Amino acid sequence: MDALNKLTEYFREFPGIGPRQARRFAYFLLTKSPSFADELARLVVEIKKSMRVCDSCFRFYAGKSGTVCNICSNTERNHSELMIVARDVDLETIEKSGTYNGMYFVLGGTVPILEKSPETRVRSRELLKRVDGKTDKNHLKEIILSLSATPEGEHTEEIIRALLKPIAEKNSIKITVLGRGLSTGAELEYSDADTIKNALKNRA
Amino acid sequence: MDALNKLTEYFREFPGIGPRQARRFAYFLLTKSPSFADELARLVVEIKKSMRVCDSCFRFYAGKSGTVCNICSNTERNHSELMIVARDVDLETIEKSGTYNGMYFVLGGTVPILEKSPETRVRSRELLKRVDGKTDKNHLKEIILSLSATPEGEHTEEIIRALLKPIAEKNSIKITVLGRGLSTGAELEYSDADTIKNALKNRA
Amino acid sequence: MDALNKLTEYFREFPGIGPRQARRFAYFLLTKSPSFADELARLVVEIKKSMRVCDSCFRFYAGKSGTVCNICSNTERNHSELMIVARDVDLETIEKSGTYNGMYFVLGGTVPILEKSPETRVRSRELLKRVDGKTDKNHLKEIILSLSATPEGEHTEEIIRALLKPIAEKNSIKITVLGRGLSTGAELEYSDADTIKNALKNRA
Amino acid sequence: MDALNKLTEYFREFPGIGPRQARRFAYFLLTKSPSFADELARLVVEIKKSMRVCDSCFRFYAGKSGTVCNICSNTERNHSELMIVARDVDLETIEKSGTYNGMYFVLGGTVPILEKSPETRVRSRELLKRVDGKTDKNHLKEIILSLSATPEGEHTEEIIRALLKPIAEKNSIKITVLGRGLSTGAELEYSDADTIKNALKNRA
Repeated sequence: MDALNKLTEYFREFPGIGPRQARRFAYFLLTKSPSFADELARLVVEIKKSMRVCDSCFRFYAGKSGTVCNICSNTERNHSELMIVARDVDLETIEKSGTYNGMYFVLGGTVPILEKSPETRVRSRELLKRVDGKTDKNHLKEIILSLSATPEGEHTEEIIRALLKPIAEKNSIKITVLGRGLSTGAELEYSDADTIKNALKNRA
Repeated sequence: MDALNKLTEYFREFPGIGPRQARRFAYFLLTKSPSFADELARLVVEIKKSMRVCDSCFRFYAGKSGTVCNICSNTERNHSELMIVARDVDLETIEKSGTYNGMYFVLGGTVPILEKSPETRVRSRELLKRVDGKTDKNHLKEIILSLSATPEGEHTEEIIRALLKPIAEKNSIKITVLGRGLSTGAELEYSDADTIKNALKNRA
Repeated sequence: MDALNKLTEYFREFPGIGPRQARRFAYFLLTKSPSFADELARLVVEIKKSMRVCDSCFRFYAGKSGTVCNICSNTERNHSELMIVARDVDLETIEKSGTYNGMYFVLGGTVPILEKSPETRVRSRELLKRVDGKTDKNHLKEIILSLSATPEGEHTEEIIRALLKPIAEKNSIKITVLGRGLSTGAELEYSDADTIKNALKNRA
Repeated sequence: MDALNKLTEYFREFPGIGPRQARRFAYFLLTKSPSFADELARLVVEIKKSMRVCDSCFRFYAGKSGTVCNICSNTERNHSELMIVARDVDLETIEKSGTYNGMYFVLGGTVPILEKSPETRVRSRELLKRVDGKTDKNHLKEIILSLSATPEGEHTEEIIRALLKPIAEKNSIKITVLGRGLSTGAELEYSDADTIKNALKNRA
């Protein structure tokens, strides 16, 4: 198999990419300059080396020295709030919204509804350790479960809530979830009963 | 112009129907039995006669006698809450959700953002009269603005809020809006800053 | 059940209309003037009375007198060509294209692939009678099978071809099908092998 | 800017990739093994080195030695037919269809409708040289213009036809285009007048 076919197969593993687009990616590279390809190759290797997983929140960050990321080591952020998100992209979306100033924990995924071993899908052990360790020293007061309002997100929420319940109660840590209601752009006519119920409950 | 073309033109006025589907509707009728056509024709005329607009909430209802609908005349509902919706279909969606037991007022539409004469688009005068008349006798305590979370919905919300402000303040009526947050099915990654801000604010 | 619900049910039978849009249609009528409703009702009844099926091509037409439509009785059209289409709307599309000047025959539908009794889906008997009767007097020279290039269209094509084969051979009538190739808007990259094969064969 | 952001920017240049998916690609790589990243990087570089442009048809191929690709050097293919396509992916689609056994020429793109300098978009000079050189020795009999049935494809077709006309006439080379008609899956009702006209013309 030649490089064109091999590269097409690699691109097919990229999220959301089918065979036709993978092929187009390969041809796209052929039409670009050698320096574009060289720099892309360099970055693909470099990203694996330069980015590291934060020891505290488990997100990827450009780690130069130390073991925790710039969010976790930021003393101006609120260390008494811990938001639990599924993935790095969720954390980025929250950060971009500019509405949260606490800590994070990245689960590394969500738990599919029929999954027998949830702990293989999310960082359960690391989360327990994180909550336990920090409550002693840092007075963790609230854990915010920030999962998507999808069946899998809600399932993950339940699992994490059950996991954290004992330690949270012992240390008087409040567990909250993101408020439900009308998302921006939502039309009333097409909203389901649950959304309306929550929108009514959260009216202000 | 023959009946086929005339009927096609009438169907084209139906909401969301283009020329091709209007044509298909006309041909569809041709393939149905005469009794189907007769009954449809009868219903089209009957609906205009048997349905009437409620004097109080302005929704359409199957009015037999009296001047207010079965919701407005229901003494077991909470008459101290008044929910303002844009259209009958919104009211139906709320009713189907089974989460609201108060009164309604149907605006009859929304106000486009550049509209110079909002009062031509919504029942402003009737709304003022409704709020004024009821507060005296029925102790209206809260008005819930239930518009869609769309630009036009929010614009209408602002206009109605400004319209009601004086009378609400005078009579100590609270004006609220539906809570914003994650709608059912919403994914965190794709949520905008406003939705996240509100979801965080409404966390519980 | 009130008129609103009954009318909604009738609209739900319209092709391509779901429960929500059926409801919107009913409310739409409520907001229109009584004269709109009256005229719509009148047309719904009138269309059933004023339109009739042509004895020759079986399309619906505004029949005043006589038994064949204005296309079938048009002596300036080419009566030696007979195009077979599935539905009235297909005939209209061909007429609008202004590229065909022969006769038509409307099958009244297509034959689903697993259908055991094709004759219940299309006007087989009437077609045979039409072809037989006309060949004697009118020198039918060509029958053009104009079905969609879909699996069901191709299946119908095969069935009609087999049905007509004996009579066509006996009377030296040529049976043709619409040419295959690139439709307007088709992109080469996304075309299937069959389309490319035909496009190559029909190159000019 | 860290490697994550830089890599995201590179992925954004990929065809059809927006900022969000580019970001997801970068995170995807972070979750893959170092060996996946290493091999991907290697292939990105290798493809630029191992693939070359054929001197005759200008497609990319895994060139080991020699100057023309395995299609152009294949003596069992028909060298008297030359098919002109816009891009390598089009050539691949034709090859996969297994319905063509002649030669190719890859234009390298199409000509946008308002483009003032068509020659900057397609390999005009190379095409003229290819046709001229080959006609002498190889008895080129037919040039098949295989462009998409889109406005830009048709515009490119006209430009190439005008470009080739003098040399084709001089050497008695026929210029043809792919046949138009119903593409696989096309429904008659939704076909435009042009498609119907061609489908009728190409009926068989």
